[in-house]
Amino acid sequence: MAVKQKVLLLGATGETGTSILKGLQESGNFNIEVLVRPTSANKPSVQKIQEQGIKTWCIDLNESTDLISALSGVDVLISAIGPQDVLQQKKLFKAAKLAGIKRVVPCAFITVAPPNGAMLVRDEKEEVYNDIKLLGIPYTIIDVGYWYQISFPIVPSGKVDYASVIPNNTIHGDGTAPNLLTDLRDIGRFVARIISDDRTLNKYVYTFGDILTEKEIYRIAEELSGEKLESTPMSTEQIEDSVVQAKAAFSQDPQDPMKRMFLYLSEYKLSKYVRKDNRPAYADYLGYLNARSLYPEFTPLSFRDFFAEVLDGKGRKVYSS
Amino acid sequence: MAVKQKVLLLGATGETGTSILKGLQESGNFNIEVLVRPTSANKPSVQKIQEQGIKTWCIDLNESTDLISALSGVDVLISAIGPQDVLQQKKLFKAAKLAGIKRVVPCAFITVAPPNGAMLVRDEKEEVYNDIKLLGIPYTIIDVGYWYQISFPIVPSGKVDYASVIPNNTIHGDGTAPNLLTDLRDIGRFVARIISDDRTLNKYVYTFGDILTEKEIYRIAEELSGEKLESTPMSTEQIEDSVVQAKAAFSQDPQDPMKRMFLYLSEYKLSKYVRKDNRPAYADYLGYLNARSLYPEFTPLSFRDFFAEVLDGKGRKVYSS
Repeated sequence: MAVKQKVLLLGATGETGTSILKGLQESGNFNIEVLVRPTSANKPSVQKIQEQGIKTWCIDLNESTDLISALSGVDVLISAIGPQDVLQQKKLFKAAKLAGIKRVVPCAFITVAPPNGAMLVRDEKEEVYNDIKLLGIPYTIIDVGYWYQISFPIVPSGKVDYASVIPNNTIHGDGTAPNLLTDLRDIGRFVARIISDDRTLNKYVYTFGDILTEKEIYRIAEELSGEKLESTPMSTEQIEDSVVQAKAAFSQDPQDPMKRMFLYLSEYKLSKYVRKDNRPAYADYLGYLNARSLYPEFTPLSFRDFFAEVLDGKGRKVYSS
Repeated sequence: MAVKQKVLLLGATGETGTSILKGLQESGNFNIEVLVRPTSANKPSVQKIQEQGIKTWCIDLNESTDLISALSGVDVLISAIGPQDVLQQKKLFKAAKLAGIKRVVPCAFITVAPPNGAMLVRDEKEEVYNDIKLLGIPYTIIDVGYWYQISFPIVPSGKVDYASVIPNNTIHGDGTAPNLLTDLRDIGRFVARIISDDRTLNKYVYTFGDILTEKEIYRIAEELSGEKLESTPMSTEQIEDSVVQAKAAFSQDPQDPMKRMFLYLSEYKLSKYVRKDNRPAYADYLGYLNARSLYPEFTPLSFRDFFAEVLDGKGRKVYSS
C-alpha cells in the first residue's frame, strides 16, 4: 500500500479551506495536519477540527523556526489564506523551501485573470507566485472560477433568499459573458486529485463544474423555480465607473478592509463581464491546464443540481458560520 | 506557394536585432520591415538596412497612430530594443493589439531567470510581458542564455584580445555552474524557426548551442590554443557583495546608464553562477520549451567552433560597430 502524502493546510476554517479539508478527507489518500494562526486559535471552527483528531499547529506566520518544525516531513503545503492576508504567506514559503517541501499550493482559488493590472486580489497573489519561482519550489496554482454559491439570482417568491449572501439580480453588460463556475464543495475534490498528480507540478490548473453566462443562469433559475425573474441591468460603463470609484476610495485608505473588499468586487465584475477573462480560452492563453480534461472520470456538481438544492431549502449561505 | 509572413522588427541595428534580421533574411520565409526610432534614424547602420531595400518606418514609440500604421498588415512584431529601453515598448504593444498582430515577440533574449526579484533587467521585461497578457495578445518569449561572444577567456599570447569586450579571466564560485550559451549569430536562426511555429504561441522558449561551465570553457580554450590559462577567482560572497554595491549605487542615481549597466552585470553573475538559474532544469520549472527539442534538424554553432574562429582571427568584438 502506498504511503499517504502528508499535507499541511493553512486556512482550513475559511470557505475554501473547509472545502479542501473535506475533499482531502473524502479521498482517504492523505495524512492531514492543519496550520492555524494564533489569532484564529480559539475559533470554534478550529476546535471542531481538533475534535476530529486532526493535528493542529498554532504558529505565527512570522516565526520561521516554528514554521520549519511544522513543515518537517510535509509533502504538500496548501494555503487557503484569506485574500486580504496573502502577502503573509511569504515567510511560509521561505520556510517551505528550507524544509524541502515537495509541492506548495499557494492561495489562488479565484477566477482566471491576468497576472497583473486587472485585479488587486490577483496582483498580490502574483507577488507570492513570483517569490515561489525565485525560491524555485515545486508548486501548483489552482484557480476555480467563481462559486455557484455566489452566482445565483433570487426569485420573486423569496425562496432562495436564505442562501444568498448579497440578494440582487443584477445582469452585467448584455449578460452573455461565459464564466467558469465551480461548486464550493467541489474545490476540495479537485484539489485532492490535482495534488496527487505529477502532471500538475509547476503548472497552473483551472477547475469548473459549469461554464455559464448570466442569461443561461437566469434561464435555469426560471425553469427550475417556475417563476419569472426580474433583473437590473448594469452597463459596461457603470462597471468601469465602479472600479474607478473603488480604486479611489481604496487608495485614500488602503488599510480599510471594506474599501479593499469593494475594490475586489468591482474588479471581479470588470474581469468577469467586461474583460471576459474567466473563461477557458483566456486560461489556455495563460498556460493553464484544464482540470476537467485531466480528470474525465470525476463529474463535478452541476449548477442546475446546485440551484435545485437551494430551491429545495438545502442550500447554505456562505460566510455565515 | 505559401504567402510570406510579414515581420516588423524593432531594434534591428543592435547586436541581437542584427542577428534576427540576418536570420530572417537567411530563411527566405519573411517579408521584413524595420521600425526605427527618430533618435536612430541617421545611424549608418540604419542606412545600410535601407540600402538593402528593406522598408524602414521611422516612428516615435509614443505616437500610437503612427505605430498602428506601421503595424497594419504585420503578422509578427519582434522587439530587440535595448535593455535600458524595454519599458518604451508599452505603447507599441497597445498599438499591436489594436492592429490585430498575430504574434508579438517582446524583447527577451537574455538568460533564463526568475520573473521577479533576481535581476532588474528581467523585472522590467516582466512588466512588459504582464502588459501583453493583460491585453491578451498572442506572444512568444525567446531567451537565449548568454552569448559565446561574451563568454570566452583571454589567452596569455593575447591572440583573442581583439575580440574580447572586457578582457578578463575571472572564474566565478567554483567554476562548475552550467550555463545555457548561444552564438549571437544563431539567435536569428532560432527566431526564424520559432516565429513560424504554432507550438511556440503563448509560450516561453529557450535556445542554446552549448551548455557549459566555466571550467569546461577554460578546458576548451586551453586545448584549442595550446596555452595554459590563468584565472582570477571571484567568490560567491564577492559576487553577492558586488550586487549589494551595484544596487546601492543605482538607487542613488537610477538615471545613470553606467550604474544601470553595472547592476545588470553583477546580477547576471549572481543569477548565472550563484543562483544557477540559466540552465535547462530551471527553464523547465518555469515552463519554457527547449528550442533544441523543437528543431532537432537545426545544428547551432558550437562553442568549440566559435572559439577556434576567434583564435584564427575571424572573431568580431561585439558592441564595437
